[in-house]
Amino acid sequence: MNSTQPAASPKHLATSGVSADHPGVNELFALLAYGEVAAFYRLTEEARMAPNLQGRINMASMAAAEMNHYELLRDALEQRGIDVVPAMTKYAPALENYHRLTTPSTWLEALVKTYIGDALAADFYLEIADVLPDEVAGVVRAVLSETGHSQFVVEEVRAAVTSSQKQRHRLALWSRRLLGEAITQAQFVLADHDELVDLVVSGTDGLGHLTEFFDRLQHTHSTRMKELGLA
Amino acid sequence: MNSTQPAASPKHLATSGVSADHPGVNELFALLAYGEVAAFYRLTEEARMAPNLQGRINMASMAAAEMNHYELLRDALEQRGIDVVPAMTKYAPALENYHRLTTPSTWLEALVKTYIGDALAADFYLEIADVLPDEVAGVVRAVLSETGHSQFVVEEVRAAVTSSQKQRHRLALWSRRLLGEAITQAQFVLADHDELVDLVVSGTDGLGHLTEFFDRLQHTHSTRMKELGLA
Repeated sequence: MNSTQPAASPKHLATSGVSADHPGVNELFALLAYGEVAAFYRLTEEARMAPNLQGRINMASMAAAEMNHYELLRDALEQRGIDVVPAMTKYAPALENYHRLTTPSTWLEALVKTYIGDALAADFYLEIADVLPDEVAGVVRAVLSETGHSQFVVEEVRAAVTSSQKQRHRLALWSRRLLGEAITQAQFVLADHDELVDLVVSGTDGLGHLTEFFDRLQHTHSTRMKELGLA
Repeated sequence: MNSTQPAASPKHLATSGVSADHPGVNELFALLAYGEVAAFYRLTEEARMAPNLQGRINMASMAAAEMNHYELLRDALEQRGIDVVPAMTKYAPALENYHRLTTPSTWLEALVKTYIGDALAADFYLEIADVLPDEVAGVVRAVLSETGHSQFVVEEVRAAVTSSQKQRHRLALWSRRLLGEAITQAQFVLADHDELVDLVVSGTDGLGHLTEFFDRLQHTHSTRMKELGLA
């Protein structure tokens, strides 16, 4: 099992009550598209802390995968008649704030951020895919199938936290902060975009209450912390 | 026709006198692999000069393509039993020197560097593919078929040099400097690696004299300068 994917597939969300022309779909894709480009540039910046060439190569491969995701989302938006760059731009503040507030100060923090970020994105994509109509869900699943480039992180972080209890505590706190900031920024985005809220809660088989959605993210986050030896 | 490819295909090089286990093949792949990773990081750094999000996205897509090339080369080296990262590392000085000596100071210089660099790499890959045995040439051709992401540069540079004669002269000089530094560094690499020299000149149908090889690079470079409106 690819451990960057959620521990339990949310099967209770299998049927969709959302139509493909729901205005939230374009907004969601634009948000995710900006997220991929922002992640690309942050990864390449944070890769400067890599202690060696192998670390820089791993981070570059992760970053390249983000651009592949971006291209899937861009193509989907273009097919839906959307002018991609302006549509993305309105999500810049939330995503740039997330990255600004979670700038790692060590290589290990950068690794944990990469892993947790990749995993949270995978959770999010999977939850979302299950409430979307098939034609739209296909795009999201294609992006999701492209994740899992962050496995190289596990070995390096586990080795570091096994040999240092102090590192373990420090990185556990860091990991909780990453989740906290991600949820905070997600809530800001939802507060500003009714069509996104409507998308995630619409239909009886939708994501259900937002609280439950965030609860599930928190649960899968705990799984990842265990994988990294942080919990 | 994809204008990042050479104006004339070097058909005179169609038959190979090189065997797949020539020691130069591993060296060549390692050199190209380091080149791709170095290009990735330089592109993302130079993209900071982009005036807008579209520019940053274009550069990120280019950079992601470099990592796709890298992965093809890495897989080929692994299949040949080579420990990839140490093999690449010895080519770091030449490639880092090239980039250090050609650090752009404006967005237009960054665009021209991207285009000329991508095109030179394409020329080089194509020349090399034609002297390699089929099983090895396949890797190089797969990388080559992935190039051509730099077309976005043409429009922007042409517009800038059409409206400013000063920009045209400045970017023409810059473009010549890029070629000069590329050739200088290539010669340093060849001087240090006999097996690479042997690879490029071996066989009656090999690349022939190195001088001719560099002459051809110069010729295709002129074609690119015309495409950009610089000659």
